[in-house]
Amino acid sequence: MPSETPPHRLSEFAMIAKLFAPLSANAKGAYGLQDDAASLNVPAGQELVVTVDTIVDNVHFFGGDDPADDIAKKALRVNLSDLAAKGARPIGYLLALSLPEWVGDTWLEQFAAGLKEDQRRYAVDLLGGDTTSTEGSLTISITALGSVETGRTLRRGGARPGDIVFVSGTIGDAGAGLAILVCEAPDIPDEAIDHLIARYHLPEPRTELGPRLLGLATAALDVSDGLLADLAHIAEVSGVRIVVEAERIPLSDEYVSFAGSSISAILDAATAGDDYEIAFTAPPSARAAIAAAAQSAGVPVREIGRVEEGSGVVLLDLDGKPIPVGQPGYVHF
Amino acid sequence: MPSETPPHRLSEFAMIAKLFAPLSANAKGAYGLQDDAASLNVPAGQELVVTVDTIVDNVHFFGGDDPADDIAKKALRVNLSDLAAKGARPIGYLLALSLPEWVGDTWLEQFAAGLKEDQRRYAVDLLGGDTTSTEGSLTISITALGSVETGRTLRRGGARPGDIVFVSGTIGDAGAGLAILVCEAPDIPDEAIDHLIARYHLPEPRTELGPRLLGLATAALDVSDGLLADLAHIAEVSGVRIVVEAERIPLSDEYVSFAGSSISAILDAATAGDDYEIAFTAPPSARAAIAAAAQSAGVPVREIGRVEEGSGVVLLDLDGKPIPVGQPGYVHF
Repeated sequence: MPSETPPHRLSEFAMIAKLFAPLSANAKGAYGLQDDAASLNVPAGQELVVTVDTIVDNVHFFGGDDPADDIAKKALRVNLSDLAAKGARPIGYLLALSLPEWVGDTWLEQFAAGLKEDQRRYAVDLLGGDTTSTEGSLTISITALGSVETGRTLRRGGARPGDIVFVSGTIGDAGAGLAILVCEAPDIPDEAIDHLIARYHLPEPRTELGPRLLGLATAALDVSDGLLADLAHIAEVSGVRIVVEAERIPLSDEYVSFAGSSISAILDAATAGDDYEIAFTAPPSARAAIAAAAQSAGVPVREIGRVEEGSGVVLLDLDGKPIPVGQPGYVHF
Repeated sequence: MPSETPPHRLSEFAMIAKLFAPLSANAKGAYGLQDDAASLNVPAGQELVVTVDTIVDNVHFFGGDDPADDIAKKALRVNLSDLAAKGARPIGYLLALSLPEWVGDTWLEQFAAGLKEDQRRYAVDLLGGDTTSTEGSLTISITALGSVETGRTLRRGGARPGDIVFVSGTIGDAGAGLAILVCEAPDIPDEAIDHLIARYHLPEPRTELGPRLLGLATAALDVSDGLLADLAHIAEVSGVRIVVEAERIPLSDEYVSFAGSSISAILDAATAGDDYEIAFTAPPSARAAIAAAAQSAGVPVREIGRVEEGSGVVLLDLDGKPIPVGQPGYVHF
């Protein structure tokens, strides 16, 4: 805990009025956070997509060390990433904060400033929320709402044999960033260290890419547990086998400078998690349209494997031989 | 904490599959909780109403003492109460659980059983959620979704001078229940004690009444902070003064057996909170329709005061003299 005597904290109502109500100013149905609930019109022909993700001090972030604005952004972005992977455009979010005594006005101001920046960046508004005190850990739960054309929400269950497996961006950076934070700084350029840590602290939800995959992708999710573990979710729900070619997994230059590009380094990247890239499947006929979507979104997309009949996920080396995978991703508990 | 060595707990995925996925079986857009997000169709002509409330161990319940099924029900019901006060019919909810080590399979099974019972009772489904571990307190955050005819959501800001102030059910029971739990059992019949404690543990959201007030009530909210504190919210947001006649505040026989019916006992009831009744305002012309709505909903509704020009909340005694109110309700922090 960063301080021994509790810092000053505004009363709940003052905090809401001063720090959070301004974040809801553009959302008519948030009623300036003066009500118990928000109302929201989902446009005709659209369905609502809704998701919740919680981040907890000392599990998902380090409240004593990480800047509060980064924590706010991470809490929001992991939810926007879920919406993006469903093809949904974000509308807004609800914020549930459980605050221990050490969280004071200064921390909360910085937290709200982080939300404000990201609201502008991702065109979302705060719709409502709840603040409670806690004797336990700082806990931030965000419910994000988005919309998508009715019936077109991308899901995990649609992958079919013959589909190609794609992933956006690069894999492994966040895991490397966390490793650097937890262990010693490696002997690589500062810029590379900063990049990898930033990828851990501040995921970039692929909000521009996801909606462009509607009608193209057969299954999609965001990579949070680890690429192989998440592809295993698609394989399981779709009832298929997913084959990934290890050397096709996209690694950043920064990751390679940190970990190299051996099979072991690739395996680390593919099992680390927190990437918040979109992994998806699509038929070969969609290749050109996917390339165009990636271009419009400004996000690289790489083919990394294929969908077959069967079950599970297989990682192949350059010779097409399976690579043993111990733990495919983050074990929740 | 109820146990010294951590009890067995299923892995997250096994827990979701075994305990929580069955709770989503009737919600098509929950995809059996196998996806990162749920999708939901809001019927044409309806707007979505959404609210979030968090309950935290040792703040809102006592994880070591309270039965897990009651905790689950309370977490859900406080949210359904918010929807009801907005006139919304509930659709479903998202559940975010942060679990400390002491929460094991047995606790979780009982927790899920409580949700199952209330899902049937209130016709709602689990739509999605998130589970995380925590080094801190058991924290349960529920986001509830409902719908109401577009533009008709009941709010806090519509009370007008000349309106009557109403409240449903009885006030003060939950506060008395909490007092009994925290202090010694009073010398009143066991049935009365049980009733008051049950009112604290298990609020009864007025889901049948709320939607029947659409088009009748000018402002509404659920009583959670304390009757007078919550009426002060209506007064503030509506820009009016609310006058309450103390002896009209509805008290249960059980409450009176515990606390009597002195001005001081009434004041305790009106400032205790956790009632989860609906307080609302409506013009005199709506009296008959409100009585009919109360009858259909099977919930008594009482006139307790009036709306005037001005600001604040005033409590009057039998002679029409203002009663000094120290602390009008629960102070959050």
